[in-house]
Amino acid sequence: MAELDARERILTASRQEIAASGVRGLRVQQVAKRAGVSLGLVYYHFEDRTGLLNATIDAVNRAVQDRGPVSDASLSPAESITTMLAAEFGDAGSTRDDSVVWNEIRAIAVFETEIQAALSQTTREWEGRLSEPLEHAGVPSEAIAETATLLTGLVEGLSSRWLSGQLDTATAQKLMRRGVSAILAATIT
Amino acid sequence: MAELDARERILTASRQEIAASGVRGLRVQQVAKRAGVSLGLVYYHFEDRTGLLNATIDAVNRAVQDRGPVSDASLSPAESITTMLAAEFGDAGSTRDDSVVWNEIRAIAVFETEIQAALSQTTREWEGRLSEPLEHAGVPSEAIAETATLLTGLVEGLSSRWLSGQLDTATAQKLMRRGVSAILAATIT
Repeated sequence: MAELDARERILTASRQEIAASGVRGLRVQQVAKRAGVSLGLVYYHFEDRTGLLNATIDAVNRAVQDRGPVSDASLSPAESITTMLAAEFGDAGSTRDDSVVWNEIRAIAVFETEIQAALSQTTREWEGRLSEPLEHAGVPSEAIAETATLLTGLVEGLSSRWLSGQLDTATAQKLMRRGVSAILAATIT
Repeated sequence: MAELDARERILTASRQEIAASGVRGLRVQQVAKRAGVSLGLVYYHFEDRTGLLNATIDAVNRAVQDRGPVSDASLSPAESITTMLAAEFGDAGSTRDDSVVWNEIRAIAVFETEIQAALSQTTREWEGRLSEPLEHAGVPSEAIAETATLLTGLVEGLSSRWLSGQLDTATAQKLMRRGVSAILAATIT
């Protein structure tokens, strides 16, 4: 139990370090210090920096999943998807921090090919969570995977604009809603 | 003239260094070495690393502009826009390299706020180049700026997937075409 706690504490520290200063600035030693554990324990749990990054990708994905979409029976399936994706932009610290971590890991994966598999896997899980709502919204089954990629790709593109101060939260949400509506309207037959 | 050449050689070297190993790995000394100039000359032209990054943003923008869209009178305005944006994904080294540089600079701008102004400016120029085609395609004038942001945001989101090996070039182009068509269809009244 204590070991599990340490592992989770290390992952939380890794997310906080990346959110504060990026993957560039990530030092395993700082993560250990922030988590209040020895450097050896970090290596024991994650082997090396890449192992820690891979586990951090997974931790962010779980956190986003746990926050979950606000379920609201009065919304149509299409409105539920729009609401869920617009919620990727928000001023709560955890929403922004997770977005920064995700943005960083995507950028670094261009160069650190050893984390591409974990990134792809997490992306597929994210897209997978859209399958059922997209099916309910009337997207033909053969178009579901592609539509999920298009929608999540748009989230990531607008996130990068939002995180670098080019779009405020309200505008990012508004554009996301417009994009989702357009893509769904063109796909639902 | 020789000075102008040196300046351009430094910028080319900066783009090549970033494309090869990212902004994280960018050392001004390596840029000087690759350009075949003294370290002092780099600082003379660009003051510091931030100045070099800002000028690199501008150089990538000019390169993309110079390559320009393939103009084809047989295409409708909407098809021209689609073709232009799908051309952001391509296997030619320069296309991919510029995309890597742009992706890197966007990621680093989240933390290095002093390059956000240059990034915003270049993004606005890029969006501005879409204004006329969007107008010709029938997008109402009050929706042009927002539509340009949505389309270029989608380019960036799919670029990140493409550069990190999650989408091949053909799939990225196909998704881009689908996204552009959907967004235009929903906007043109």
